[in-house]
Amino acid sequence: MKKILNDPKNVLDEMLNGFVYANEGLVKRLEGTGVIYRTFKDEGKVGLVSGGGSGHEPSHAGFVGQGMLSAAVCGEVFTSPTPDQIVEAIKIADQGAGVLLIVKNYTGDVMNFEMAQEMAEMENIQVEKLIVDDDIAVEDSTFTAGRRGIAGTVLVHKILGAAAASGLSLEEIKTLGDQLVPNIKTIGVSISPATVPEVGKLGFQLAEDEMEYGVGIHGEPGYRREKIKTSREIAKELVNQLKKAFNWKKGDHYAVLVNGLGATPLMEQFVFMNDVHALLKEEELVIDYKKVGSFMTSIDMAGVSLTLVKLADDTWTRYLKLPVKTPAWV
Amino acid sequence: MKKILNDPKNVLDEMLNGFVYANEGLVKRLEGTGVIYRTFKDEGKVGLVSGGGSGHEPSHAGFVGQGMLSAAVCGEVFTSPTPDQIVEAIKIADQGAGVLLIVKNYTGDVMNFEMAQEMAEMENIQVEKLIVDDDIAVEDSTFTAGRRGIAGTVLVHKILGAAAASGLSLEEIKTLGDQLVPNIKTIGVSISPATVPEVGKLGFQLAEDEMEYGVGIHGEPGYRREKIKTSREIAKELVNQLKKAFNWKKGDHYAVLVNGLGATPLMEQFVFMNDVHALLKEEELVIDYKKVGSFMTSIDMAGVSLTLVKLADDTWTRYLKLPVKTPAWV
Repeated sequence: MKKILNDPKNVLDEMLNGFVYANEGLVKRLEGTGVIYRTFKDEGKVGLVSGGGSGHEPSHAGFVGQGMLSAAVCGEVFTSPTPDQIVEAIKIADQGAGVLLIVKNYTGDVMNFEMAQEMAEMENIQVEKLIVDDDIAVEDSTFTAGRRGIAGTVLVHKILGAAAASGLSLEEIKTLGDQLVPNIKTIGVSISPATVPEVGKLGFQLAEDEMEYGVGIHGEPGYRREKIKTSREIAKELVNQLKKAFNWKKGDHYAVLVNGLGATPLMEQFVFMNDVHALLKEEELVIDYKKVGSFMTSIDMAGVSLTLVKLADDTWTRYLKLPVKTPAWV
Repeated sequence: MKKILNDPKNVLDEMLNGFVYANEGLVKRLEGTGVIYRTFKDEGKVGLVSGGGSGHEPSHAGFVGQGMLSAAVCGEVFTSPTPDQIVEAIKIADQGAGVLLIVKNYTGDVMNFEMAQEMAEMENIQVEKLIVDDDIAVEDSTFTAGRRGIAGTVLVHKILGAAAASGLSLEEIKTLGDQLVPNIKTIGVSISPATVPEVGKLGFQLAEDEMEYGVGIHGEPGYRREKIKTSREIAKELVNQLKKAFNWKKGDHYAVLVNGLGATPLMEQFVFMNDVHALLKEEELVIDYKKVGSFMTSIDMAGVSLTLVKLADDTWTRYLKLPVKTPAWV
């Protein structure tokens, strides 16, 4: 394992401290916990809380700030945060209008956020929960029943964050989320695996000339392993899978997110976006919003994922474009 | 070489098209060139132009926008842009108040930007040039006489961009730049080398347990190769080198930038920032501005660089903090 780290056991603590220091004034850490919260208080507005295992930086703490998340709960690397820490995040996020939990669909996360929801409700905080399961690659997986939650989650943060900032009620935001999630689909490809610091070796093996479609952000198996292809061919495969899943028509409106998985430089992400653009143009879709960058990573995995959102409502596009002030979303 | 690309010969073209597509509305590409310019026109204000070889994304095109660069000239990977393209960028950046060229100190870049300056002056555009040579690792290098220009250049974009937006004259901005550059110093470490797509193999070799201090962003040799150390030890070495170079006193004001070299995930960058923070605190420096992220990369090199700016003037801090609207600077 070749990394710039100290004792792998302290990665979470040191990383969060470095993150909070770098973003002083914008976010704080609830001492002794993995809870990162914004200094900005939006009184009377709904609070949004997300989180999960670490190793997906900048997710989710990088999206804490004005116009996106109120707080993020950061578990150990690839490990769900505990219910008591989630409760702390809920308490700090509640500004009197209740809190929505945005949870990627992994069994541990769902269980712990659910437990925290019950605990917070006992303390008379109104809490709703939204499960994101945007990964269309496989059904049921190493840590999941159903489909996994991956990069599309960041767009849920963005859209619901804007809704919360605009003053929608908890019930309205939950309804919006329920409409939104089935319209967000993601699929990815890995060309080299990640190394969890505490494990110290690659999470799985890929030959020097191989790639795998649909690998999860914790290295869960995908749906097909092949000799490495060109960006154009990879884009074709991913767009085709999304086309099947959405069953779109010419003229439909979409948002597109090309997401780097951690070690893939922007050079490749932009080349890939160029190929995606050509294919979506052929399909005669209308793309109202686009984004490229490493937002939902898997430590130092190389590869990309492609997310499309069917923009069923103009408001969603407006929410995507509303300016925010967070560490990681421009 | 394992990358998500098509024909390596077309990397620049495809990457720029993907970049411009992703940032539609904010930037445009001058057709048939590597010139990226902002759609925002700041009439009567000084224009800032930077650029150089590609492979350092998001530099420099990612900093084109309101409050930073007017245009960036993107050469082929690790290859200076041609003078005629730089002239095109100057013309588009000129809003009647002249143009400042911000050039990283590499022989090819300096020569071509200088030639472009002369050509533009013959067309009656007022042009000044600022050479950035912030890398304190080595003196004279594979492609450089003197010291190389690296990540500190991005902070020059930020500070002078704010100065230009504030309405300073070309002469004032050039004077500010001349004061600023000697107060910016950077030093880095590489733990794994980059692969230029057209070359197809690693730029240099590092053993599985080795790292090298002071490697250039094109893989130029550094000043020492060692067994890989902890983040804390690396931070100590880099801070010590900077301490020698600055000869600082307790209470001096500084800005700090931790920069990922391309394949290094945020996890490691934040852990490293945490260690840098501890050391700067021991030195009793006052840190008025901090930033972490991959801003000046070397394709898929792994490693980090550390930049410090001695904030000799309060205005510099204010300029660093002024909001901007660009693809890559939050």
